[in-house]
Amino acid sequence: MGAVHPLLTDTTPLPEGLDARLRDQLTFVIEVDRLKTILRQSPLAAADRRENDAEHSWHLALMVVLLAEHSDEPIDVGHTVKLVLVHDLVEIYAGDTPLYDAEAAHTQQAREEAAADRLFGLLPPDQAREVRALWDEFEARSTPEARFAKAMDRLQPLLLNWMARGGTWKSPGVTADTVRSRKAVIGDASTALWEAGRTLIDEGERRGWSRPSLS
Amino acid sequence: MGAVHPLLTDTTPLPEGLDARLRDQLTFVIEVDRLKTILRQSPLAAADRRENDAEHSWHLALMVVLLAEHSDEPIDVGHTVKLVLVHDLVEIYAGDTPLYDAEAAHTQQAREEAAADRLFGLLPPDQAREVRALWDEFEARSTPEARFAKAMDRLQPLLLNWMARGGTWKSPGVTADTVRSRKAVIGDASTALWEAGRTLIDEGERRGWSRPSLS
Repeated sequence: MGAVHPLLTDTTPLPEGLDARLRDQLTFVIEVDRLKTILRQSPLAAADRRENDAEHSWHLALMVVLLAEHSDEPIDVGHTVKLVLVHDLVEIYAGDTPLYDAEAAHTQQAREEAAADRLFGLLPPDQAREVRALWDEFEARSTPEARFAKAMDRLQPLLLNWMARGGTWKSPGVTADTVRSRKAVIGDASTALWEAGRTLIDEGERRGWSRPSLS
Repeated sequence: MGAVHPLLTDTTPLPEGLDARLRDQLTFVIEVDRLKTILRQSPLAAADRRENDAEHSWHLALMVVLLAEHSDEPIDVGHTVKLVLVHDLVEIYAGDTPLYDAEAAHTQQAREEAAADRLFGLLPPDQAREVRALWDEFEARSTPEARFAKAMDRLQPLLLNWMARGGTWKSPGVTADTVRSRKAVIGDASTALWEAGRTLIDEGERRGWSRPSLS
């Protein structure tokens, strides 16, 4: 991917004289500016455009702080925030995979693994391992923190779709039951938030903001 | 400000049947979507447009995680991340005040206090107090965490200006010494990061990316 994705700092290299470790950290910090250019499917509530991954990641982090009390299991808020801050970084090179796009989902893992190797490899080795471990934990959902982080990742676009009176609920082939089944992981972390999420999905279906389920 | 700024959820109210506390939390979570529309002066490194406050806040939060080792004093990383996640929320109603705009700085405090009252007041009272305390701590810089958060807030645009080969360093009336004096607070948190910051400012001045100092 080197030729396709030169580093941002290749165009304007950092000056001589920086400590080598700090130079690697700043190279990474500048490279991840690209997250602001990765568009998601979700429409903003506050403007007539789609959301990008950096905005989304900030929104999730703030939601973790404010909604942590609704986790069914005790969670370390600071650690959960770290998970959401890094959870979409691989999309810088792998691109966003829409929740309702089954084709893209087939190749998602391989694309994201390659992206993780390249992107996290810019960091000093100890931090590359730390960020990789955070991403792996998020993906595996093997901890209460990862389950809550994933719940935020599914609840936040649900709120945006509500505000858009449909949004991606109107994607081709999607019914209210598709939405319910893709959002059910919220319930793995929080009974209360999944109850609220279901209320929004049910009411959205009733209002015709999503396609009715087949049953 | 009520007439000027109706809530986002006034246009599409949340459905009946939500728990009252959770309804207030979600109303706030949706309202802060507006942070994504507040433009800063800084140009992105990865695209030809200005940065918004949500993107900036995410970038600072990730920088806290990756650069905390450079703090001169021990800091609680999770708490420092909370400070940067909320530090610009008041700009949702008060607007961004550019670092090099002395006029706007005069009215900044009053505008931001009013914005804080209105925005944080959407939350349940205990959380309104918690978020207000985080914002006050950030503004007062009275803790190591707040000093490090402020250092990130000054270092991040410095990196973007470097990548833009000048950026807001070329604002009217600004010289390299103005930049040095506005960025010196980085040194209140981290000797190493301020040394790096000064290296970028000095080299930028040498290359003509900022106006030379008068001396």
